[in-house]
This record gives sequence, structure tokens and C-alpha cells, in this order.
Amino acid sequence: MTYCVGLMLKKGLVFMSDTRTNSGVDNISTFQKMFTWEVPGERSITLMTAGNLATTQSVISLLEERSKQPSERNPGILQMPSMFQVATLVGNLLKEVISTHAEAGQRADSAFNATIVLGGQIGDGAPCMFLIYPEGNFIEASFDTPYFQIGETKYGRPILVRAYDPEMSFEDAVKLLLVSFDSTIKANLSVSLPLDVHIYKAGSLKNGRIFRIATDDPYYESVSTGWGIALREAFGQLPDFVLPET
Amino acid sequence: MTYCVGLMLKKGLVFMSDTRTNSGVDNISTFQKMFTWEVPGERSITLMTAGNLATTQSVISLLEERSKQPSERNPGILQMPSMFQVATLVGNLLKEVISTHAEAGQRADSAFNATIVLGGQIGDGAPCMFLIYPEGNFIEASFDTPYFQIGETKYGRPILVRAYDPEMSFEDAVKLLLVSFDSTIKANLSVSLPLDVHIYKAGSLKNGRIFRIATDDPYYESVSTGWGIALREAFGQLPDFVLPET
Repeated sequence: MTYCVGLMLKKGLVFMSDTRTNSGVDNISTFQKMFTWEVPGERSITLMTAGNLATTQSVISLLEERSKQPSERNPGILQMPSMFQVATLVGNLLKEVISTHAEAGQRADSAFNATIVLGGQIGDGAPCMFLIYPEGNFIEASFDTPYFQIGETKYGRPILVRAYDPEMSFEDAVKLLLVSFDSTIKANLSVSLPLDVHIYKAGSLKNGRIFRIATDDPYYESVSTGWGIALREAFGQLPDFVLPET
Repeated sequence: MTYCVGLMLKKGLVFMSDTRTNSGVDNISTFQKMFTWEVPGERSITLMTAGNLATTQSVISLLEERSKQPSERNPGILQMPSMFQVATLVGNLLKEVISTHAEAGQRADSAFNATIVLGGQIGDGAPCMFLIYPEGNFIEASFDTPYFQIGETKYGRPILVRAYDPEMSFEDAVKLLLVSFDSTIKANLSVSLPLDVHIYKAGSLKNGRIFRIATDDPYYESVSTGWGIALREAFGQLPDFVLPET
């Protein structure tokens, strides 16, 4: 499937995405699902995709083309004055690409659908994050709902809910996301390493640390093994259950 | 939705089911989803249901009727000589009830579908557990796959995978299931307390301890709160992440 998470912190934004793509269980590949753009001193934009790969690759390619050859009629994401307008542009593009192939009518279950997490900062605006639907509309994250997950979201959600803290450091946020990804990867074969990570520092207005966590990464292994042990210990420390009186 | 889990241990079987039923978010009710039958000294059978409530209630009612008025042509679940044959009977009944209402053809996405977890022990047979599909066929649990979940399964699965131990006591198994249910209840509004529990002791050939965990049960509260705290502490104890060198 896919698993991508965008996390909003007081210190900035953290993005993590897997790289497994599959067309049936007998056809798996590795494709990047995270894409970044920057105009240093002015903007940093990150986009992560889930869903039909042909759709998402078309959206990325069109965004790239139009940002390299902007015109008054077709400003690209490097020209839009706010993240809200970038989200609107990406949403319209996503809807357009899907409708090129999908049958007319309801878009909800189309095989060509894709969902996008878009985040970043432009100029004076605050860092922000959007979840863009195949229909082209979108919602924005706030500290009430400070993260968006796309793809196989359920296994990895409980730990995000419980351990997320808006004041947490970037390092702790990466650790949190790795635990969330580990639960997902263990449960769904179509989500897998390597993982792409982008740490965006609020106010920096340029791409931050971008790196890949490889399939045999020793830190990931230590988190994965350590978390299993930690869960069993935590379970053992819960108060004992006593059968009710008959 | 529903959440029910059947767990197989060396010591016996543990069943837990929620009781929330809903028809849209504005129409929620409480209905029992666990049903038990016994012939003391001979058999104990437990059945838990997920899916279309009208379908599952019909299946239960027909099982009840036929077990009270068995005939040579229509033996009931209290007459079948093995759990495998009980599973076959229940599977056929489920398929029959669904097809009474569903359109002809593919059954996979029918609005009338239901899934059943069936467990128990008859005579000399070992305790066993089955997952019965709307198509009427079924699979059997073994110590390779020693539990079945039906309904909203994803949130509650990681802790089962990590903390399950075939040698665990019944009390620990109930505690484990409550942690699994707590993650699910926190994440999906259509799963809720009260919870029904049945602890079947291997070789006893009669129903075991059957009880309900109420909405305000203090032990459940202590597990729910304690687990949140334990997860945050476990997370804090994982090795720190260090940003890779640029």
C-alpha cells in the first residue's frame, strides 16, 4: 500500500514515507514517495503521495514542469504566494490527472485515486500541512490534529496518539515515527523500508535534513527490537486482572 | 463496526466481544455479540459475530431453534459429533441466511455479509477455534495462528502479536485482550464497552466463567490509563535517534 506521515511540531515539520510499491503481491518495487522543492530564503515545500502510482507520478511531473516554466496563466508551486494556494493548485492538478483516466461520475472508489500530504512554509506564513483528497479538496492540520497519515494508517496510529508532544525534539519525532512505521511494516507486507525523511526547521525557509533510512539500518533495528521488548515489559507491569467473584 | 477476539491458549480458550452496534453515526445501540451453548460433560460452544446484525441474529436464532428441535435430517450444534462439523453447519447456515437477501453472484462485498468466530470443545476432541467467512467456508486456528479477530482488527493487532504467549494464564490473556480492545475503542467510535468475556478451560467440557465488563469498570479504566502511561515511558526508554552526519 504505502505509509506516509507528516507531523507538525512547535519546532517545525517532520515528514516520513516508505518506498514500497506493489501491483499485486508478485510485483513489488521501490519508488520514492516524497518530493521536495525549495527557494532558499523564501520557501520549502514537501509532498508525499499514496495511491495509484501512475497518478501520483503524473502529478509530480506536471508540478515540476510547470514550476520550471511558469507563466502568468500557469504559476507553479515556486511562485504561489501562500501554502494555501499551493494546496489549491496541487488539489486541482490531482483532480485533473485522475479525471483524465477515471470514468465520469463518483470519484470515491476510482482505481486511479491518490491522496497527498503537502507541507511547508512560504515567506511570512507559518509552517503548515495539508491532506489533499482525490476530489481536489483538502484539510489543514492544526495543533488539535497535528499529523496526517496516508496509506495503511491504522496499525501505526495508536502510538502517535499516545506519545506525540508538540514540544518534542526532531530526534524524538523521528523516533516516534519509526515506532509507528515499525508497527505498520510488521503488519502489512506492502509497506517497507527504505524510508525517506525530511526534517524542516520552522522559519528556515529552505529544505532541512533529508535522508534515507536503509533496509538494514542498525538504529531502525534497535528501535524495532527494543519496542517489542518494551511492549512486553509494559504489559507485564499493568495491574493484574482478577476474575470476578462467581 | 465490532471487535471480537478468540484466543487459543494451552490452558483453554478466551473469547471477548464488544457490544456496540450502529446503523450510521446517529443510530447506536448495545447488542450482545457472543453466544454460548453447552451440554455439561460433553461440549461447550462459543460463537461471536461481526457484520450485518440482521444476518447474525438470524443465524443465532436458527441455530437455537434447530438445536432445540433436532431431527435426523437437521441435527443441531448440540448433536454434531465434532467441532469441525459444527463449523461446517454454522458456515452453511451463514451462507444460506445471506443468500436469502443478497443479490445473486459475488458475495464478497454484500451489505448482508457477516463473519463468525466459533470455538469450543466436544468430547475427546481438542479445544479449537474457527473463523467462518460469509461464503460459508472457514479456517481453523493453530498455535501458528492462535487467535482470530473480526470487525475492526487493525488497531488492536500489534499488541496481540507482541505480547501473546501460549502458556499465559487466563488472567493475563484477559488483560492482553483488554489492552487490544482499548486501542481499538480509542480509535473507532463504533466499538465500545460493555464487553462480554468467556473463559473456557480445556477439558472442562462445559461453559466456563462468563461475565461482562461494564462501561465504568474500574479495572478497565486502570488498564486504559496505565497503558497510555506505559507506552509513553517505553517510548522514552528507546535508544535516542541521532541525526546522520551531513
